Amino acid sequence: MNFKSILFIVLAFTAQQLFSQENYKTISKADSTKTYLGGKPYEVKTFTQKFKSKTPKNIIMMIGDGMGTAQIFAGLTANQGHLFLDNFKCVGFSKTQSANNYITDSAAGGTALSTGQKTYNGAIGVNTDTVAIKTILEMAEGKGLATGLVSTSAITHATPASYIAHQGSRGSYEDIAADFMKTDVDVFIGGGYKHFAVRKDKRDLTKDLQANGYQVLRNMDDIAKVKSGKLAGLTADEHNEVYPKRKMDLPLSTQTALNILSQNKKGFFIMVEGSQIDWGAHANNTIYVVNEMLDFDRTIGKALEFASKDGETLIIVTADHETGGLALVGGDMKSGMVKGAFSTGDHTSVMVPVFAYGPGAENFTGIMENTDVAKKMMSLMGF
Amino acid sequence: MNFKSILFIVLAFTAQQLFSQENYKTISKADSTKTYLGGKPYEVKTFTQKFKSKTPKNIIMMIGDGMGTAQIFAGLTANQGHLFLDNFKCVGFSKTQSANNYITDSAAGGTALSTGQKTYNGAIGVNTDTVAIKTILEMAEGKGLATGLVSTSAITHATPASYIAHQGSRGSYEDIAADFMKTDVDVFIGGGYKHFAVRKDKRDLTKDLQANGYQVLRNMDDIAKVKSGKLAGLTADEHNEVYPKRKMDLPLSTQTALNILSQNKKGFFIMVEGSQIDWGAHANNTIYVVNEMLDFDRTIGKALEFASKDGETLIIVTADHETGGLALVGGDMKSGMVKGAFSTGDHTSVMVPVFAYGPGAENFTGIMENTDVAKKMMSLMGF
Repeated sequence: MNFKSILFIVLAFTAQQLFSQENYKTISKADSTKTYLGGKPYEVKTFTQKFKSKTPKNIIMMIGDGMGTAQIFAGLTANQGHLFLDNFKCVGFSKTQSANNYITDSAAGGTALSTGQKTYNGAIGVNTDTVAIKTILEMAEGKGLATGLVSTSAITHATPASYIAHQGSRGSYEDIAADFMKTDVDVFIGGGYKHFAVRKDKRDLTKDLQANGYQVLRNMDDIAKVKSGKLAGLTADEHNEVYPKRKMDLPLSTQTALNILSQNKKGFFIMVEGSQIDWGAHANNTIYVVNEMLDFDRTIGKALEFASKDGETLIIVTADHETGGLALVGGDMKSGMVKGAFSTGDHTSVMVPVFAYGPGAENFTGIMENTDVAKKMMSLMGF
Repeated sequence: MNFKSILFIVLAFTAQQLFSQENYKTISKADSTKTYLGGKPYEVKTFTQKFKSKTPKNIIMMIGDGMGTAQIFAGLTANQGHLFLDNFKCVGFSKTQSANNYITDSAAGGTALSTGQKTYNGAIGVNTDTVAIKTILEMAEGKGLATGLVSTSAITHATPASYIAHQGSRGSYEDIAADFMKTDVDVFIGGGYKHFAVRKDKRDLTKDLQANGYQVLRNMDDIAKVKSGKLAGLTADEHNEVYPKRKMDLPLSTQTALNILSQNKKGFFIMVEGSQIDWGAHANNTIYVVNEMLDFDRTIGKALEFASKDGETLIIVTADHETGGLALVGGDMKSGMVKGAFSTGDHTSVMVPVFAYGPGAENFTGIMENTDVAKKMMSLMGF
């Protein structure tokens, strides 16, 4: 065996090694002692299943971005067997395909959920001809209901943007911020300050917001103190931090928004997004996914607390798509350890769960299109 | 650089290569033109949602072995957007953990679904102390109902065995076959002939079966002709072949069994297993998974046809666990092509869907334990 033939073998191995990267899977472990609340599981309360009305007065739409069946079960394992989602007795599946792609992005996914129409990947509140489509939030506003948006990403990011803006491209953040000014949304809390205040066109939209009667606040403590009126909570320059470093508190922001919106006697519509379940999965990081999943589930707990007392509020929890192709290849329900394996850094096509609680919840069962989720909500609200 | 150091590098690469196998992901594509029915999607009928009674007289329990959310959606994609499962309006999730393991095997999973008790991996119809537990099939038999088992594996394999046998170890196939003789099961169709006829103890149980009044048949055409009486259909020496080479026809076997069992005026219980969805996933073979998923879904179609006419039959479709950590990383709903990526050759822990149709179906919603699936069925049947 001469040097050349040995070198050939080494190069062949190197090539195979590099080639195999394409098919490489990341396995990462979420150990609950290192994750959410330092490994102490939170208590999951059981809420009533009796409601005051047959159709809802209020809707709390909750989107776990990238939250497939496995993301939910990773969280359930880390919280040692239970989630607030256990309270949801009406379950279905949503088919997430977009108008032009078997695998959707969050813009087309968000627009399907906000308008009931399939569109192309990247579209924000516009159809396949880039024509603006009315969203359920705008319909609610048109009927005199209070409206709100809460998100752990920038509030101008694809999912919340799909409910309030109309842009051909999800990357047009400053145009999306400007679209907020065309609405009368009562409360929005999320990142994205710079898209309002530090713009290429030199306009400072936070001043316009103040002129329009909004309390513009950047600090979580200040936001949590607001009891009424219009509120623009811009908690980060762009995206909010990763849990638990995040200054913006999703459960508290949601509770604050619900307190304000529920003062409208005609009812309200709010969309709450757990944005970073998706980002944890894109990063193939199980700890990140679990932390964000459990932060989102605790927020679902706040929504349940409100809705169970109110009796006229429908909560829908779903996702825009699955991210990462997460598989759960090991774990322990007693310690809360869970071992996740990811197949991709991108989104996948699999149908995602839909959970419904409250009056009208029984309509959100079986296998449905993502657009049906919006259409059913609109129909129940008489929009 | 001398020969030794080069050899060291080669060995290091080899070691890394071998080590990386653990983290290796398989991507395989199911192209519908090469799969089920030669790429021609089958028509999915819509069945009535109105039933004659509030509780069921008959139960058709259908287990897709290894069938998680992604396996279902792979099949749905390959059939270009629809499955017979679309008819199921009551949906839930089943937590599959066994008594001693976060990730169950089919024996503990089957026993949980057949008895309502968690047990250890490998256990067939026995509890954690290896004591026999009565199964829902045995309870049905005790009440004078007709009973049946149909499976694309050997009928002595873990899932069907869990409904009729009581053995400490799933590998005791001949003991499991002998356990069939202790019951009065009316119909069973599956592989496993050799466990009855070619045994270490030299007994030929097929003769005992005939003495007990069973028609013992090995050919699918003969089996399909049976209209009444007791039937032992042993369609393969051990396991049945892989679809479409399989001589045993799962939809036809199920239809045949339903025709026979429905003659009992007190009602019936049958368990039908699509065994090889699991095997396709163990093999990390998307085509195999899709073919078996669609064969199983067409069988669900046969069950729906019966139940919708009958009006007193509850159909439950679920899985014992997910296999392969399947992720759907590409595809096309129009052509039916779907690209699956597998994270493991083993089972995973994720909760699996539960679909229910018929009187009492509304009880099988939300997130539940696998044991609850059995308990709810027993309660509805008054067992």
